[in-house]
Amino acid sequence: MLPRTYENQVCSVARALEAIGDRWTMLVIRDAFLGVRRFDDFQRDLGIARNVLTDRLNRLVEEGILEKRAYQERPERFEYRLTEKGADLWPVLVSLMKWGDRHALADAGQPTLIVHRDCGGEVNERFRCERCGADVDAHSSAAMPGPAAPRRWPTAAL
Amino acid sequence: MLPRTYENQVCSVARALEAIGDRWTMLVIRDAFLGVRRFDDFQRDLGIARNVLTDRLNRLVEEGILEKRAYQERPERFEYRLTEKGADLWPVLVSLMKWGDRHALADAGQPTLIVHRDCGGEVNERFRCERCGADVDAHSSAAMPGPAAPRRWPTAAL
Repeated sequence: MLPRTYENQVCSVARALEAIGDRWTMLVIRDAFLGVRRFDDFQRDLGIARNVLTDRLNRLVEEGILEKRAYQERPERFEYRLTEKGADLWPVLVSLMKWGDRHALADAGQPTLIVHRDCGGEVNERFRCERCGADVDAHSSAAMPGPAAPRRWPTAAL
Repeated sequence: MLPRTYENQVCSVARALEAIGDRWTMLVIRDAFLGVRRFDDFQRDLGIARNVLTDRLNRLVEEGILEKRAYQERPERFEYRLTEKGADLWPVLVSLMKWGDRHALADAGQPTLIVHRDCGGEVNERFRCERCGADVDAHSSAAMPGPAAPRRWPTAAL
């Protein structure tokens, strides 16, 4: 059993992992960055059990990483969007992706590229545009299918 | 139950999380960056069950993130050090720490600072030295106690 908190750890890494340190949680956040917003779309893309997805989404709303908004009234339907706190996880996701590109999928090539919206240049592991040198963040970047993108990139839901 | 692999996920984030997507694993890696090398020191710092720590260390050695080296012959004793693949996780750790500093420990202040070895400047969330502007990486940086460091920073073992 993994404890929910690390009481004796005065550490920002430990605190961050309390909020997001679960693999499904990180994949939910990844999907949110790719534009997934609705329960059924998360569910279809991740192939995750509905009760587990409900738990992870509720937890992310409680943590202030996602916000739940009604997009339809009868019947009431909700979507989930990244808050600013959630959008601030962009460097964590990009760093994980770059490490995975280099070390876990080295031979297969990159499934996803992060590009600078203004000029289309690729964003490197220092969050800088390789073409124009600008500092890029969550708002000035977009994810694009890379050379090794699967047929259903990033998700059939989009 | 969390599956070990996400077979239908052609994604570097998913692949990276297979290797390191467990909270204890990330804290073991954090300790390795802080200079912890020996089983008993990891154990004391993390307060983790010995069998869980053995499992996580073995898995990190299998993944090529840590390497196990004998440092004593009779009795034989081992230490664990980050490989280059492991050192490449530095941006993931720093990004998690910066997010935790901002969003999880905002009022308490920073327990740990990352500084540029050459000039002592603080390293920002773009891995750049705030003092001299240099690009910093795992090898050219060091972790230092921050304004909110606990008394036993980073660990009693060091």
